[in-house]
Amino acid sequence: MARRIRVARDRNQTKGTPASPYIKRTLPFFDVLDEEQLEKLEAQVDWIIQDVGIAFRDDPVALEIWKEAGAKIDGDIIRAPADWIRDLCKSAPSEFKQLARNPDRSVIIGGNNQVFAPIYGAPFVRDLEGGRRYGDIDSFEKLVKLTYMHPNLHHGGLVICEPCDVPVSKRHLDMIYAHMTLSDKPHLGAITEMSRAQDSVDMAEILFGKEVMDKNCVIMGNVNTNSPLLVDKVVTEAIRTYCSRGQGIVVVPFILSGAMGPVSTTASVTQAMAEAMMVCAFSQLVKKGAPFVLGNFLSSMSLKSGAPTFGMPEPIISNYVVGQLARRVGLPLRCGGSLTASKIEDAQAAYESADSMHSTMLAGANFVLHAAGWMEGGLCTGFEKLIMDADRLGSYQKLLAGADMSDDQFARDAYMEVEPGGHFLGSSHTMRHYQTAFYNAELSDSDNVESWEDKGGMDMRRRAFNKWTSMLDNYEQPAMDPATAEALTAYVAKRKEEIPEMWY
Amino acid sequence: MARRIRVARDRNQTKGTPASPYIKRTLPFFDVLDEEQLEKLEAQVDWIIQDVGIAFRDDPVALEIWKEAGAKIDGDIIRAPADWIRDLCKSAPSEFKQLARNPDRSVIIGGNNQVFAPIYGAPFVRDLEGGRRYGDIDSFEKLVKLTYMHPNLHHGGLVICEPCDVPVSKRHLDMIYAHMTLSDKPHLGAITEMSRAQDSVDMAEILFGKEVMDKNCVIMGNVNTNSPLLVDKVVTEAIRTYCSRGQGIVVVPFILSGAMGPVSTTASVTQAMAEAMMVCAFSQLVKKGAPFVLGNFLSSMSLKSGAPTFGMPEPIISNYVVGQLARRVGLPLRCGGSLTASKIEDAQAAYESADSMHSTMLAGANFVLHAAGWMEGGLCTGFEKLIMDADRLGSYQKLLAGADMSDDQFARDAYMEVEPGGHFLGSSHTMRHYQTAFYNAELSDSDNVESWEDKGGMDMRRRAFNKWTSMLDNYEQPAMDPATAEALTAYVAKRKEEIPEMWY
Repeated sequence: MARRIRVARDRNQTKGTPASPYIKRTLPFFDVLDEEQLEKLEAQVDWIIQDVGIAFRDDPVALEIWKEAGAKIDGDIIRAPADWIRDLCKSAPSEFKQLARNPDRSVIIGGNNQVFAPIYGAPFVRDLEGGRRYGDIDSFEKLVKLTYMHPNLHHGGLVICEPCDVPVSKRHLDMIYAHMTLSDKPHLGAITEMSRAQDSVDMAEILFGKEVMDKNCVIMGNVNTNSPLLVDKVVTEAIRTYCSRGQGIVVVPFILSGAMGPVSTTASVTQAMAEAMMVCAFSQLVKKGAPFVLGNFLSSMSLKSGAPTFGMPEPIISNYVVGQLARRVGLPLRCGGSLTASKIEDAQAAYESADSMHSTMLAGANFVLHAAGWMEGGLCTGFEKLIMDADRLGSYQKLLAGADMSDDQFARDAYMEVEPGGHFLGSSHTMRHYQTAFYNAELSDSDNVESWEDKGGMDMRRRAFNKWTSMLDNYEQPAMDPATAEALTAYVAKRKEEIPEMWY
Repeated sequence: MARRIRVARDRNQTKGTPASPYIKRTLPFFDVLDEEQLEKLEAQVDWIIQDVGIAFRDDPVALEIWKEAGAKIDGDIIRAPADWIRDLCKSAPSEFKQLARNPDRSVIIGGNNQVFAPIYGAPFVRDLEGGRRYGDIDSFEKLVKLTYMHPNLHHGGLVICEPCDVPVSKRHLDMIYAHMTLSDKPHLGAITEMSRAQDSVDMAEILFGKEVMDKNCVIMGNVNTNSPLLVDKVVTEAIRTYCSRGQGIVVVPFILSGAMGPVSTTASVTQAMAEAMMVCAFSQLVKKGAPFVLGNFLSSMSLKSGAPTFGMPEPIISNYVVGQLARRVGLPLRCGGSLTASKIEDAQAAYESADSMHSTMLAGANFVLHAAGWMEGGLCTGFEKLIMDADRLGSYQKLLAGADMSDDQFARDAYMEVEPGGHFLGSSHTMRHYQTAFYNAELSDSDNVESWEDKGGMDMRRRAFNKWTSMLDNYEQPAMDPATAEALTAYVAKRKEEIPEMWY
């Protein structure tokens, strides 16, 4: 069936920006802890796994799987020898490829590779002219198109916004169909119910064919544990559906320190590691070697209101710490993103997003959901925010390439041409390199104030609005084999008939 | 004379924020280069020092000093054995204290310490209600007061904006007088002419007394080399004035890669190191052991217009690289800041400033001029930008404290109190720690959208405006011994009579 897939030749890329299916990092990781500190953290992870335990609730099949493997079960709480759990984690790949239907867009998740995807799960959207409103399928499709077109986003994620005008019970079908047909980048599948996970996997089989799917990761689910220390059936059923087919799973403890974890970054990180590692072990019991991404999402809170805060020093530190811990367990990491509590695309949004993302990047996060478009603590997807964040992601892309130490970068010949106090503008070294020397941040205005005012004195938000509207004007749908398209359409139609309409 | 100085007891601190005279960092540095790469860079630094040479121009005394020390001089170009230059650099202290007139505010520059100061040198100012205009002495004094009051700014710098309504020839007197009397934080002196440097040093002697000044660094000058490869008399005369009195000097090659250096970050960093090290060597010939800060200011440029750009990946990498190189030479480092090319306090300003400052901070910059208030590539000081940036500096302060690995942060008792799926809000560990667990970013709004709208839907810029205007309403001048105040006033009056009025 693989032969059915045609590659879109028109990449819809922003002119002049190289296509980059994902980032191969050469910059070193920023490791903030020494061996002794790491061992102290790991000892607590082991203590949580062995002595505190993690509950696996509401899915008797999951308990059965643990039982068969020989785990000690107390009610629904699993306590297990940490060595055994660490061994099981080792059977998951430290890096793996997720195929895209366009092979040029397949991504490697893990190791020195970093993959950026947009915001996931926001019920609201906002743009400069339309204001704030519930997400709908029209906005959703526009966001899928923009993600497809933007060279700095490597992966589609899934719920770029909630299409709230489609019944909850059928929404996943429209979302997956949009990702599969409007884009050719890799994306995620649904997880909210086992049948929806099943639909996702079945649609992926239509798109990629059984043979390809048997041998490759072509779709993944992204699930949250129910922190603290609880794994519910949404997680275990998603794993049973995705991993049993050899597909990937991203498991993310979401811990607001002080609520779902102790009011301590140190403790919250160890708890998150313990939860994710236990779930990884479970995934390996379901299918040895299934691709697993260890997730982490720690948030601090406002001391005034208890509301979650983003871009703050505590989650920034946790990104660096968890990066080190994940590498030691040997699992690909999801953490961070361009996160903010701001309601609009103002300086707060950008300060918080940049600090959050800078640390996400230096920490070596392999799969970054929420890398663009996140506002309001994740409640709202911003069209301008998506494009602004994505513009900055290009800058990180350059940074992750590290310092260029090739001989020509030392420019010795240039020093032979230039006098003290002179300038290098005309030197032959400059002529050779100036077109590629610097990252071109399209949405940053570096003109002087007079030129900027002459052009209308637009802030970055207005420039981002102009950018995404013009991108949509130039959108071209990537080609797809008509038989595949037809099969997908038929599947969605059939399932929509079968599934009862539910709005909650 | 030291006994004359009284300490201001009212700190004018923002309530609830601890006074923090400077940052003692415990977070490790982010080192991006390995030994081989470092040696390759250092080999080029040595080559520039030995074979290319640096011109010392327009100050015959400087050439005489080099000649007496035995340097090879070709016209005005000095080429020197790199070992000798590196040895001279070693005689400068790797860290030193700059006294403030309030001893609680003295700062350590070098080592694991980081000191933040506001923007330097902007001819324009901007605020939300007054708009963009030339700086004047009224704005200048307000900016000095705000810097004095803000707990996250440790040092006053000097030219927070240019007071353009005061003649150029007398401006330095008013600026230094304002720093000395309206604030009690450490600050810089003037450098634009030798007589102005002399006034700065003489006023510092009035403030601190000869005895204290003989034994301590109480003032520093901040000068730029004339890159590429040229050191003019502004630099050498400032060094002769400050260093001969045992006072400090900050020397900063400002290199726009492609103009004042090759269009390569790698080459530009080596050139900047060579220039600064040659000047450091000169400072040590003037006075062995004089405090010297190795500066670095690299900028990338827009490929469209040739305009300087800020917050881009190339200068970010250069911050990390130069941090490593400076530590190996053993000199305190000045680099980076909250830099941006944006004309207003929008998302561009914040993204660029945050990425620039995040790297400045992780690189271990010991003295950070331009840490707050910088806009428009340095042409404009923003009142809101100053307060917004300074708010974020508090977050970095927390981050630089590193991960807290004390036993109580592991919260083992909390896990004994909480059920799977429960919450930690009421646990005794939370009660013990919640008031100090998280950085309180005063200007970040984390409310939900409804509350935020109810309060007026203000963006961060408006909140910053409200903040700085209310700070000024609550300003109280720090106490000063009347005799000292009188002596300073008399000095300024006398010098203003002596100096001819010049407007250029």
